[in-house]
Amino acid sequence: MRRIEVTTLDREPTDAASAATMKALIYEGPGRRAWKDAPRPAVRDAGDAVVRITTTTICGTDVHILKGDVPTVTPGRILGHEGIGIVDAVGPAVSRFRAGDRVLISCVSACGTCDLCRRAMYSHCRTGGWILGNTIDGTQAEYVRTPHADTSLYHVPADADAEALVMLSDILPTAFECGVLNGKVQPGDTVAIVGAGPIGLAALLTARLYSPAAILMIDVDANRLQLSRQFGATTGIDNSDGTAIDRVMALTNGAGVDVAIEAVGVPASFDICQSILAPGGRLANIGVHGKPVTLHLEKLWDRNIAITTRLVDTAAIPMLMKLVDAGTLQPARLVTHRFRLEHIMKAYDIFSSAAQERALKVILTRSPSDGSSQEVQS
Amino acid sequence: MRRIEVTTLDREPTDAASAATMKALIYEGPGRRAWKDAPRPAVRDAGDAVVRITTTTICGTDVHILKGDVPTVTPGRILGHEGIGIVDAVGPAVSRFRAGDRVLISCVSACGTCDLCRRAMYSHCRTGGWILGNTIDGTQAEYVRTPHADTSLYHVPADADAEALVMLSDILPTAFECGVLNGKVQPGDTVAIVGAGPIGLAALLTARLYSPAAILMIDVDANRLQLSRQFGATTGIDNSDGTAIDRVMALTNGAGVDVAIEAVGVPASFDICQSILAPGGRLANIGVHGKPVTLHLEKLWDRNIAITTRLVDTAAIPMLMKLVDAGTLQPARLVTHRFRLEHIMKAYDIFSSAAQERALKVILTRSPSDGSSQEVQS
Amino acid sequence: MRRIEVTTLDREPTDAASAATMKALIYEGPGRRAWKDAPRPAVRDAGDAVVRITTTTICGTDVHILKGDVPTVTPGRILGHEGIGIVDAVGPAVSRFRAGDRVLISCVSACGTCDLCRRAMYSHCRTGGWILGNTIDGTQAEYVRTPHADTSLYHVPADADAEALVMLSDILPTAFECGVLNGKVQPGDTVAIVGAGPIGLAALLTARLYSPAAILMIDVDANRLQLSRQFGATTGIDNSDGTAIDRVMALTNGAGVDVAIEAVGVPASFDICQSILAPGGRLANIGVHGKPVTLHLEKLWDRNIAITTRLVDTAAIPMLMKLVDAGTLQPARLVTHRFRLEHIMKAYDIFSSAAQERALKVILTRSPSDGSSQEVQS
Amino acid sequence: MRRIEVTTLDREPTDAASAATMKALIYEGPGRRAWKDAPRPAVRDAGDAVVRITTTTICGTDVHILKGDVPTVTPGRILGHEGIGIVDAVGPAVSRFRAGDRVLISCVSACGTCDLCRRAMYSHCRTGGWILGNTIDGTQAEYVRTPHADTSLYHVPADADAEALVMLSDILPTAFECGVLNGKVQPGDTVAIVGAGPIGLAALLTARLYSPAAILMIDVDANRLQLSRQFGATTGIDNSDGTAIDRVMALTNGAGVDVAIEAVGVPASFDICQSILAPGGRLANIGVHGKPVTLHLEKLWDRNIAITTRLVDTAAIPMLMKLVDAGTLQPARLVTHRFRLEHIMKAYDIFSSAAQERALKVILTRSPSDGSSQEVQS
Repeated sequence: MRRIEVTTLDREPTDAASAATMKALIYEGPGRRAWKDAPRPAVRDAGDAVVRITTTTICGTDVHILKGDVPTVTPGRILGHEGIGIVDAVGPAVSRFRAGDRVLISCVSACGTCDLCRRAMYSHCRTGGWILGNTIDGTQAEYVRTPHADTSLYHVPADADAEALVMLSDILPTAFECGVLNGKVQPGDTVAIVGAGPIGLAALLTARLYSPAAILMIDVDANRLQLSRQFGATTGIDNSDGTAIDRVMALTNGAGVDVAIEAVGVPASFDICQSILAPGGRLANIGVHGKPVTLHLEKLWDRNIAITTRLVDTAAIPMLMKLVDAGTLQPARLVTHRFRLEHIMKAYDIFSSAAQERALKVILTRSPSDGSSQEVQS
Repeated sequence: MRRIEVTTLDREPTDAASAATMKALIYEGPGRRAWKDAPRPAVRDAGDAVVRITTTTICGTDVHILKGDVPTVTPGRILGHEGIGIVDAVGPAVSRFRAGDRVLISCVSACGTCDLCRRAMYSHCRTGGWILGNTIDGTQAEYVRTPHADTSLYHVPADADAEALVMLSDILPTAFECGVLNGKVQPGDTVAIVGAGPIGLAALLTARLYSPAAILMIDVDANRLQLSRQFGATTGIDNSDGTAIDRVMALTNGAGVDVAIEAVGVPASFDICQSILAPGGRLANIGVHGKPVTLHLEKLWDRNIAITTRLVDTAAIPMLMKLVDAGTLQPARLVTHRFRLEHIMKAYDIFSSAAQERALKVILTRSPSDGSSQEVQS
Repeated sequence: MRRIEVTTLDREPTDAASAATMKALIYEGPGRRAWKDAPRPAVRDAGDAVVRITTTTICGTDVHILKGDVPTVTPGRILGHEGIGIVDAVGPAVSRFRAGDRVLISCVSACGTCDLCRRAMYSHCRTGGWILGNTIDGTQAEYVRTPHADTSLYHVPADADAEALVMLSDILPTAFECGVLNGKVQPGDTVAIVGAGPIGLAALLTARLYSPAAILMIDVDANRLQLSRQFGATTGIDNSDGTAIDRVMALTNGAGVDVAIEAVGVPASFDICQSILAPGGRLANIGVHGKPVTLHLEKLWDRNIAITTRLVDTAAIPMLMKLVDAGTLQPARLVTHRFRLEHIMKAYDIFSSAAQERALKVILTRSPSDGSSQEVQS
Repeated sequence: MRRIEVTTLDREPTDAASAATMKALIYEGPGRRAWKDAPRPAVRDAGDAVVRITTTTICGTDVHILKGDVPTVTPGRILGHEGIGIVDAVGPAVSRFRAGDRVLISCVSACGTCDLCRRAMYSHCRTGGWILGNTIDGTQAEYVRTPHADTSLYHVPADADAEALVMLSDILPTAFECGVLNGKVQPGDTVAIVGAGPIGLAALLTARLYSPAAILMIDVDANRLQLSRQFGATTGIDNSDGTAIDRVMALTNGAGVDVAIEAVGVPASFDICQSILAPGGRLANIGVHGKPVTLHLEKLWDRNIAITTRLVDTAAIPMLMKLVDAGTLQPARLVTHRFRLEHIMKAYDIFSSAAQERALKVILTRSPSDGSSQEVQS
């Protein structure tokens, strides 16, 4: 590896930084996690930054990892792919950031220049993609090393709301790109969203950017359906009795919906989506699927429909930041619980029982200036 | 029904025309067809035309109907949804055509003005769609009644090639709209077409309108693969040994294809398509499916792909006519056999054994001026 | 002309209806208009409807006509191309409407089936386009004949707000199609609208359907700029001192705007638009121009910009109706004055001095059930 | 500037390389150019490559520069922004290329990662754009320093045709992106190209990738119009008598063209374009304009047209390389003259009298392995 010069905020020698330790949330195999000491990361490649985390959160994917469902994640890995922080050090090839900058970390690390990045398919970057908290150590720690920093971090103004912006690391661009953009939501459309968890609610928030005429939210959790209404859904459909398809068809006078957004990731929810599409409709899949689904081409072959999949590219982060700044988009509404970063084990407990705890997104904070952090239990 | 005035070429009274008979190919239940007398059609609705057929052809769908696979077709139905002819009579609401006009008949009858027609989804017209040779009598007859004539017929110049243009009733727009347009074929793309029958070859001819860099044709019929090469495929892949997927991946250096066009309509061919898509790829289904397929969302959920279906809308007919006229598109290359219309029973025999007979499209003709017709066995 | 059967609400014979008179606003040459008797229209072509007007309004174009600026309008013409009413009679080819139906009249009469209509360019319909109150008599009358009724009228629910919906005859689709759609307004965009009159404000209302981050409204009328802020503009820029360009560039940190919408129709406002475009920007012209403009290609040739023009096609009416029904769009906010139809001469006086009178849109009503009408001076 | 390590083919120390000289074509003020010694370039920034030129060419823009029309070019500048060569040295941040690689040089140097590059507007790169042979030394020399090498160079296979590929440095992507893509050429379209010089002919070659039904070529040079026919134009229109507009309208039966491509850069040619557009047409400007034009908005405001400008982004280079490799695109047909690089002064003489010399593109070559080069006068 090429020797590089590293500049840090506190002028510590690189070697010393490497030797230092920090606290981190570590995956220790299926069902096992720990908040404990880990080596503090240092710049390794010329395009790296090291970021001191000030705000992070827990993603549904982290819970899947803990169940052992994500084979690329091996024991010993620091989890987390979302975060706001302060740049602590940058490699010599980093030109847009320097130590002291406040930044938003994309869940996707992208070189920005390979053939797939040039098509804005950053999630498929030849040397990046979703690697944080997956194949390299992640953001649920005091410090994180972020590769391809110039094209994977975003400047955050000093007065910006970290709770709102940390939602832009993953969940909002995921819902927007995979659900709303792929679903081609247009003004006047009727949109159904299957799954009113954090991702489904983020799809609801971002679908509204295109002014659909109706948003039908389908779930089995009465609390989440009620929240959906507060977030702007025109109708909440409780599918506890399995009649969602019939009710959507009745609500649309038999026409079906223009856009069906799958925000769960199981065959049953995909099946609802494919059953309620109007001719010309779009089925935008967001969910992470572990099993194949049955696609009823015998019914759909002549329906002029489109089914799309996508891994979030986070290409929309700059646009979403503008809308948060303008007050048009309020992603902090997804935040239900707040903890100090050092209490992340408790936060995981809450988040792992999200429905019972009425939890959506859980914020973990650490003071930007010193070791202390604030905790507000909402 | 509203009483209407009807004008005919030969000034026969309408009642007499209704009473007259003609010859037609009639579906008589699964496995049974006959060329026999049927009542000659008359204008029934104000927007109707009656067309004297001069050229028609047989579609793969007609063979499916004969197997009993299309429940909307009931015994007694005159088959056929493709044709060129001379307008014999028009209803009073028809403003663009009059008796004596030479016309191309779209396989889709569309009012042009309902909500779905206004979105150019003519196949889903509220009072039309694919009805000819399906829910109303079709074109494999001496005369056919065509509803919504103003928006379902196209003027054909006197010197135009009927063999080329009859391919525009169905097969070319089907391949182009469902395969090429839905697949968003772009210059430089690598395109795979699964199925080298008439539809697959029509997809090949029309995909070339967008100058892809490579077209990989996949089939199990050596003759058809050889034809594919003559039609411009860069590679023919014989899947007799079931290794098509591996060979496509090898040919694309593991990348997969930008566009996979399904032109068969069975789970196995769909499966090839979903297995060879590059990230960002498009799977455009043309095939008529009778069974569900297994969609491997557990592999595809993060691949940024799109899967599309469509029933041909024939919105592309005017454009395709321009390209035939310009000599850019030569659909008559699909014609392998020619018969007089009265020999249609034999033509069906040939077409039903298409692979053995090396048959693609079979042309049936009748003289435009009198009762005689020419036959050239190619 | 073909003889046709006509059905009317009141079962009067067609001839009698033709002979009857009504009141109408008639253009009598430059600067001259009168509210006086005119022959009551009857169905003439098979696709016609006759509509009894219940709500209409005055368009800026009507004022231009009165100045003699629109040479296609000849003395004796009944003005008006916007309206809500009750169908009084329909021709035999009309299938979607019948006497008694409450309808919205599009300012564009379109056959729906010619080559240009099939491309949704209804304003360029081969036998229609903007003809009402232009080359045929219009809607500022007790009755109007509307050609191509099936594709130029829209059903209005009994409980719908006529004031809101009459804005959908012309001004809202004009602003939306020519300004917002052509300008490709996207979430997060910075949009400038030059001209805060009724059309510019309608562009503001409909631009918001796509959630831009900023809308800069440019005008010289302080009252209208204040209204703009109430309607959702982020900044109002008073160009009385001619510094709008500098101020837009300052507000955008020198970058310029993503979309500039020209809503006046004079060279000076076009010039502002072309001077404030960011690289990649879109200039969407709505204004009706009477003179050429100077296009600074020597500055713009390398700026990756697009300039668009369009005559409203009203293709967006069904979508806009959904959004009015959903409460997302509130076009009645544009209404400032209300009169009985018989007081239209006074309404013209007010509207012709719009700035001084602080007038935007002026509503003229007539009772749907009898001859009386309500007047509320706002 | 940061100190960097440089690797070179011949292991010469960087300082020595900097001190070395080479031959280059130098602009010495309006009307003056010289082939003379210049310092051989070295890597300066971490992302630079130094390329040993083996093939280059002369662009019409170079002739404009020599006339003094491009104020950003100052005396002493080495001209040229097109080229094929062998990488001689790379800076430490270059990861995709190394010494010895054969490369195509884009006329646009782009970082690939700034906000405008991420929108694929490479020509507006915050730290690049068209700088070669403009604000930094260019390719008409034995060596050139190319900034942002990873995102501005393209690998060229050993067996690829340099004459064909050097056309992809500028002229083909310019014609394709600014003319064909911006003009949205579609199958079946009628396209007019005003200007049959190298750029116009390149627009013709690349427009054909989308299979228009007709391409009308307009020029005043009979030789170039004849060439156009050989290149696939359906009609050549000699505008020597100023009747081009009338003849286009006659050829299109009064309809006008779907796409008008401006490939000259003067008001007269723009005027032809705006006068022949059909409703819904697109006017794609390629020409470099030195003066404003008169835009007839009083005629065009209601025509549903789009006018676009663009500086070539060369985003299409990878796609065009595929089509050259596939044999679909044959840009070497534009080459009329060939010289050794050291005879570039003579080549400029020829190219500056292009019409008289029947010159299109002039190829300048130098042996890849040693100092010698081949010359073939075509």
